[in-house]
Amino acid sequence: MKKILAINSGSSSFKFKLFTFPDEKVISEGLADRVGLEGSTFAIKVNGEKHKEEIAIPDSETAVTILLKKLKKYNLINDPKEIIGIGHRIVAGGEEFKDSALVDQETLKKIYDLKQYAPLHNAVEADVIKAFMKFLPDAAEVAVFDTSFHQSLDKVHYLYSLPYKYYKKYGARKYGAHGISLRYISQEAAKILNRDLKDLRLIVCHLGSGASITAVKNGKSYDTSMGFTPVAGITMSSRSGDVDPSLLPFIMKKENLSIDQMMKILNHKSGLLGISGISPDMRDLRSDVTPLSGEKKVRADLARNIFINRIVRYVGGYILEMGGLDGIIFTAGVGEHDYRVREGVMDSLKLLGLKPDLAANKNNDTFITKKDSKIIGMVIPTNEELMIERDVVRIAGLK
Amino acid sequence: MKKILAINSGSSSFKFKLFTFPDEKVISEGLADRVGLEGSTFAIKVNGEKHKEEIAIPDSETAVTILLKKLKKYNLINDPKEIIGIGHRIVAGGEEFKDSALVDQETLKKIYDLKQYAPLHNAVEADVIKAFMKFLPDAAEVAVFDTSFHQSLDKVHYLYSLPYKYYKKYGARKYGAHGISLRYISQEAAKILNRDLKDLRLIVCHLGSGASITAVKNGKSYDTSMGFTPVAGITMSSRSGDVDPSLLPFIMKKENLSIDQMMKILNHKSGLLGISGISPDMRDLRSDVTPLSGEKKVRADLARNIFINRIVRYVGGYILEMGGLDGIIFTAGVGEHDYRVREGVMDSLKLLGLKPDLAANKNNDTFITKKDSKIIGMVIPTNEELMIERDVVRIAGLK
Repeated sequence: MKKILAINSGSSSFKFKLFTFPDEKVISEGLADRVGLEGSTFAIKVNGEKHKEEIAIPDSETAVTILLKKLKKYNLINDPKEIIGIGHRIVAGGEEFKDSALVDQETLKKIYDLKQYAPLHNAVEADVIKAFMKFLPDAAEVAVFDTSFHQSLDKVHYLYSLPYKYYKKYGARKYGAHGISLRYISQEAAKILNRDLKDLRLIVCHLGSGASITAVKNGKSYDTSMGFTPVAGITMSSRSGDVDPSLLPFIMKKENLSIDQMMKILNHKSGLLGISGISPDMRDLRSDVTPLSGEKKVRADLARNIFINRIVRYVGGYILEMGGLDGIIFTAGVGEHDYRVREGVMDSLKLLGLKPDLAANKNNDTFITKKDSKIIGMVIPTNEELMIERDVVRIAGLK
Repeated sequence: MKKILAINSGSSSFKFKLFTFPDEKVISEGLADRVGLEGSTFAIKVNGEKHKEEIAIPDSETAVTILLKKLKKYNLINDPKEIIGIGHRIVAGGEEFKDSALVDQETLKKIYDLKQYAPLHNAVEADVIKAFMKFLPDAAEVAVFDTSFHQSLDKVHYLYSLPYKYYKKYGARKYGAHGISLRYISQEAAKILNRDLKDLRLIVCHLGSGASITAVKNGKSYDTSMGFTPVAGITMSSRSGDVDPSLLPFIMKKENLSIDQMMKILNHKSGLLGISGISPDMRDLRSDVTPLSGEKKVRADLARNIFINRIVRYVGGYILEMGGLDGIIFTAGVGEHDYRVREGVMDSLKLLGLKPDLAANKNNDTFITKKDSKIIGMVIPTNEELMIERDVVRIAGLK
């Protein structure tokens, strides 16, 4: 039986999902963690059972070797040739990749070259592709870029108000992120609504530990809150989102920090964690599910209210930009499970005729607005790996 | 006859206006320029005639001495005691000053202490006050802070998503600016509309070389686009407005710049100037009044369209934040004179029932929307000096 692998590499880990082809069933998934670090582990789920072991994984090539061995061991494949395609999420596609791409040596080099835009990711991701090309030379390798979906942005939306030469010389512009998730969500929304995506103006609130707001007009990304990197936009788990750039030199001088140390704080110590002082995990800041009182509750509520406010600011801006809104969709961890965040956002949209269905919303239902609501509210679980799998089929022309 | 002086100091200049009291007539105005620098000048307008001379002005005290001499020379005052009050625009009031304040030694010290928030301004402004206190010891000195109006912001709106300690320890938060202008415009709008300011939700687009968007709800500043400093928010003449903070280290490394050099670029080489490569002055980018063609026209149009887009983004966000909008007001250089910018912004508001009156708008009329427009559009020329004069009267209790 033919199979397709979807690979989602981080800076020192990679997640995988094994799909059957053409029926898109997930028959296994797992994680190679702490690749290249002390205490690395490999975990694989087979028939609902999780097998995890500590094992030395010094590099990406070893990780791929272990994965292929495990797939054989658990009889998930009999022969590596059953894997006819492998899709890879690539963080940065720059202006080069406006769609997913079949990987040959030239494409691989381009992915390496784009590493300046994602220093912790692109090179590692390219290493993983290289390893698969070595061990499964007959399979189609497809790179699925997290930025491609946003290549439809108009220059008015993607250009910063900086000296133009920084764009021309260095590609300093908005690239956005979450594109794989957003494309999946947009397609699912149209399917569920039984509407043509080309006729819809949507806003997708991808609210995970990374979080972004995207205006999707006629099926294309129209504007998005993440920027040159994912640190921009709304408040996130530990990322700051938008800040006055003057705060950087001001705090650097006060705290005697280098610019690189400052950026680490903006990426890892800010957001919900920074405001609350409690946790980057929204579940720890929900007084409806976690016992919180006194100053802790005050700060947790403040973090949550700021999070909602920043979403509302972007949503309002994007409605005017698009000239209207047909539907708003919530996805990813917080988006799929935190009904009070959704309620806060929907509350601001009553002005435009959105009618929340509070019971459905509390229940995390697919439709969270009433039937006569002018703007449709939805919750759609995201599935990046399935989108990657579908791109492998589409781009490699698999039959 | 009693008189009141309004002083607007920059980092190396100060503008003044002399008002009669209580009838608010401007009988003279002028500028001490390049104070403390080579080639300083003093200019004063009397009966519509401008007198300008090159004269050494090594410091603020000298500038004040010259001003008082000139006022006597041109018979604008017979005795310095006629000046019963002097109002001073102060750039940074921090969290300390929630309203304008009568200046005594303690207040003066506080203004000096706030110089960390406006390194080029507060100390110079305090020096000017000090000089007036010396030469006109009987006059009331009133400090009118550009930030006070925004002290009504809720913490949800003024706090950044950074580690909370930076706010507690260093006051790293949104302060906003243009408060004197915004307060004047809000009051004028209510007067023109014959409505109580407490019942109005307004957005004021202060579009000068510095530019900001402010939501004014029930007479109070509710949210504003400038941040910890005036570099944040929308695209300006030479300031960048919002940028992904990751662009700072990225460009600094590419161009071998220090953080201070980078901030100078964000303040002086960005915005309309940076995008267009032509000029920071919007008049030079208007193809309807300036001959532009080819690549120059493309870039000028791009700069203008980005400027309009950034305004629209904030306006949309603030409408949802406030839960509605009664009126949008344009002021300052571009806001008062550039009908195509206003038309672009109003265009996006048609969605909410705003009906532009294109002829009135082209004519820079006070009312630029039709009578049955759901949102009223207005052009109101700003007058910071008059607001300062009124604050002197109010705060010092002059009769």
